[in-house]
Amino acid sequence: MAVAELNPSSSCRRPALYSSLKGSHDVLTRYYNRRSVFLRPAAASRGSNICCSVASNDIPATLAVKIDDPKKKAECYGVFCLTYDLKAEEETQSWKKLINVAVSGAAGMISNHLLFRLASGEVFGPNQPIALKLLGSQRSIQALEGVAMELEDSLFPLLREVSIGIDPYEVFQDAEWALLIGAKPRGPGMERAGLLDINGQIFAEQGKALNAVASRNVKVIVVGNPCNTNALICLKNAPNIPAKNFHALTRLDENRAKCQLALKAGVFYDRVSNVTIWGNHSTTQVPDFLNAKIDGSPVKEVIKDTKWLEEEFTEKVQKRGGVLIQKWGRSSAASTAVSILDAIRSLVTPTPEGDWFSSGVYTSGNPYGIAEDIVFSMPCRSKGDGDYELVKDVVFDDYLWGRIKKTEAELLAEKKCVAHLTGEGVAVCDLPEDTMLPGEM
Amino acid sequence: MAVAELNPSSSCRRPALYSSLKGSHDVLTRYYNRRSVFLRPAAASRGSNICCSVASNDIPATLAVKIDDPKKKAECYGVFCLTYDLKAEEETQSWKKLINVAVSGAAGMISNHLLFRLASGEVFGPNQPIALKLLGSQRSIQALEGVAMELEDSLFPLLREVSIGIDPYEVFQDAEWALLIGAKPRGPGMERAGLLDINGQIFAEQGKALNAVASRNVKVIVVGNPCNTNALICLKNAPNIPAKNFHALTRLDENRAKCQLALKAGVFYDRVSNVTIWGNHSTTQVPDFLNAKIDGSPVKEVIKDTKWLEEEFTEKVQKRGGVLIQKWGRSSAASTAVSILDAIRSLVTPTPEGDWFSSGVYTSGNPYGIAEDIVFSMPCRSKGDGDYELVKDVVFDDYLWGRIKKTEAELLAEKKCVAHLTGEGVAVCDLPEDTMLPGEM
Repeated sequence: MAVAELNPSSSCRRPALYSSLKGSHDVLTRYYNRRSVFLRPAAASRGSNICCSVASNDIPATLAVKIDDPKKKAECYGVFCLTYDLKAEEETQSWKKLINVAVSGAAGMISNHLLFRLASGEVFGPNQPIALKLLGSQRSIQALEGVAMELEDSLFPLLREVSIGIDPYEVFQDAEWALLIGAKPRGPGMERAGLLDINGQIFAEQGKALNAVASRNVKVIVVGNPCNTNALICLKNAPNIPAKNFHALTRLDENRAKCQLALKAGVFYDRVSNVTIWGNHSTTQVPDFLNAKIDGSPVKEVIKDTKWLEEEFTEKVQKRGGVLIQKWGRSSAASTAVSILDAIRSLVTPTPEGDWFSSGVYTSGNPYGIAEDIVFSMPCRSKGDGDYELVKDVVFDDYLWGRIKKTEAELLAEKKCVAHLTGEGVAVCDLPEDTMLPGEM
Repeated sequence: MAVAELNPSSSCRRPALYSSLKGSHDVLTRYYNRRSVFLRPAAASRGSNICCSVASNDIPATLAVKIDDPKKKAECYGVFCLTYDLKAEEETQSWKKLINVAVSGAAGMISNHLLFRLASGEVFGPNQPIALKLLGSQRSIQALEGVAMELEDSLFPLLREVSIGIDPYEVFQDAEWALLIGAKPRGPGMERAGLLDINGQIFAEQGKALNAVASRNVKVIVVGNPCNTNALICLKNAPNIPAKNFHALTRLDENRAKCQLALKAGVFYDRVSNVTIWGNHSTTQVPDFLNAKIDGSPVKEVIKDTKWLEEEFTEKVQKRGGVLIQKWGRSSAASTAVSILDAIRSLVTPTPEGDWFSSGVYTSGNPYGIAEDIVFSMPCRSKGDGDYELVKDVVFDDYLWGRIKKTEAELLAEKKCVAHLTGEGVAVCDLPEDTMLPGEM
């Protein structure tokens, strides 16, 4: 899922971007000659020279390679290059207008699960034609073609356009959904702060690209880690898109929390509701058992084992990814993809009466007293129009609030660490602990 | 997707089964101690001593390890071990009876795509609860637990039971669908005949297991290669299940053929219909452009380039898997899974008026004059009741019939090669060419 050529171990030295591009010049030339477009280096003005104590950050923020294509379009693929008139066909004339869904890290495993389920119409419905816009990296462009081929061979009636590219300014054109999955994996020995800087630059650039070319009401779901702060960086670089439209994915955490509560209570998971994940998608996250319900009753009335709730529950939720890697040898691509679909579905279908879902969203104006101007997972409800409102009727006790303050403190520290990427001055990093979730990269 | 410990290079020598079991004894003991069951060696009486010229075949046909569990059940997993009464819940009381779907090779990549889409209700519908019965191998049992964990974390409301196991006599209990994906991949230098023998033994055993414990009307879709002859072996070993219920998957070939015809004609793939794949899932397969239609007209009236149809079309369909491996570095797991879902959907929903689908089915009684008693891909229609009938109104010309006779000859030769596995005497193998499809194993 790498979206950029970057040297994660470099620290405050000259960028490696041009040389790495040069290294892959042959491949790129072959690829682009075929499409009659050419490369030019990233604009230096988009770079940043602020240096923080923990990681390289004078690598130009513009990691994507800009392509001078007068059409300003990613390349369509194969059978998806055909033009047709849906309104001229009996079977399709009642369909809605085509919806543009952009996916970054499109050659990765999470996307490989996600794309086929998006294309099947499972989330957006049986009369909603879909255009998939796949963003990859120079290294993954062949794999992206492979993905597009498999999408062709799947004959999804609703999938009407597939385009692939490596420039977010092209791929995000008119995107109504942007599912930002691609991120640089954490290299050996790299700390969260290092990852924040490297991936932050990717999300700064993608934010700029969304701001420039996406639909003015694009909904953005950030999956690449550290996703909360990546989402903050992204929204800060997209001032013309409502901040409310940016989400950091904490739905897999919510799903895992529901499953663990069900297991402990000995009920099927469909009996568990009102589960909030508060805060950061990291080990400081707070799966909330105070407001959660089982069969409509407070969890604490059903699960009397307070010690388990306070000491084991959160750990069980968080260790899930690590256990999975041990057993399965791979990270949780399939269930992550399911949770992304859940997150979208929660925004495009009305939330069931009395229930809610978790999403990492922009805190400004929140009713809970959580610090403003960060991306924090909170309980949301939607009318199914793509928008959401924060749930007001939640309660807090000292235990819950204490933990919320801790994850809030972490997000505020992460924010300071990426100030150079959010346009808020010099970055200062002070992130003592490694709070990456087990099994995540 | 390996389902058995076997040495592919061994030739007519003593079986390696016991020693390989011994080698993994520690892991197995740990696993089974936990479940209070124990292993005993496969019954020698199930073995075969017929030797053919191309591969080992005195390895006992019983490759699965029989487990003495008085419950005769595969182990349920986690939250799926709960019992509940669907009729007691308002939301679920109108649901149909639980459907049992067994999947072999359940820890492999095709299954990893397939299982989550089956569990989502996409194929069997929104009021059809599902039990997934996952068959793996000794080596994959940990991975199977990983798959079950991800299924738990996905909170699919319709997915009510997941059980995992390595004994088909347990896992196939009461199965109403058996999706047989697991097969030994072809080792370096192994020919189709060698693969036929090794995988044939797996499918002979699985046929016996289905015969013993599955639903009397189980529908079986064989995906593991060489799938036509594996399906024949399977049905021959399951005399109490209608032979008509066994399918060899040629749907991915059909889908690819539709896409190539669409690309050539410059139309979207939904305009292509009535495409038959005739014969074997191998390079002798015949994608039929004589009966196929584009926008309701014969393909030959739309695509005037007869040279392309006769010389390039089939090759394009067949090379698709190989091209994909080149580009993507992986085989076509996602689109194969899509085609399995398509194959099931074609049996549980009525075929659109005038159209048909391809499936490798038992030839006895076919109206075309194709040899009896083999599994051959032919055009089928279904009323949506899980059954099908062969389409009568197809035409043949010399070109098409000549090619059908060639793939028929191959299947008859494959049948002779596995006579020791179908109870028809001594195997004689004469398969001169390697007809494995590019990109398949």
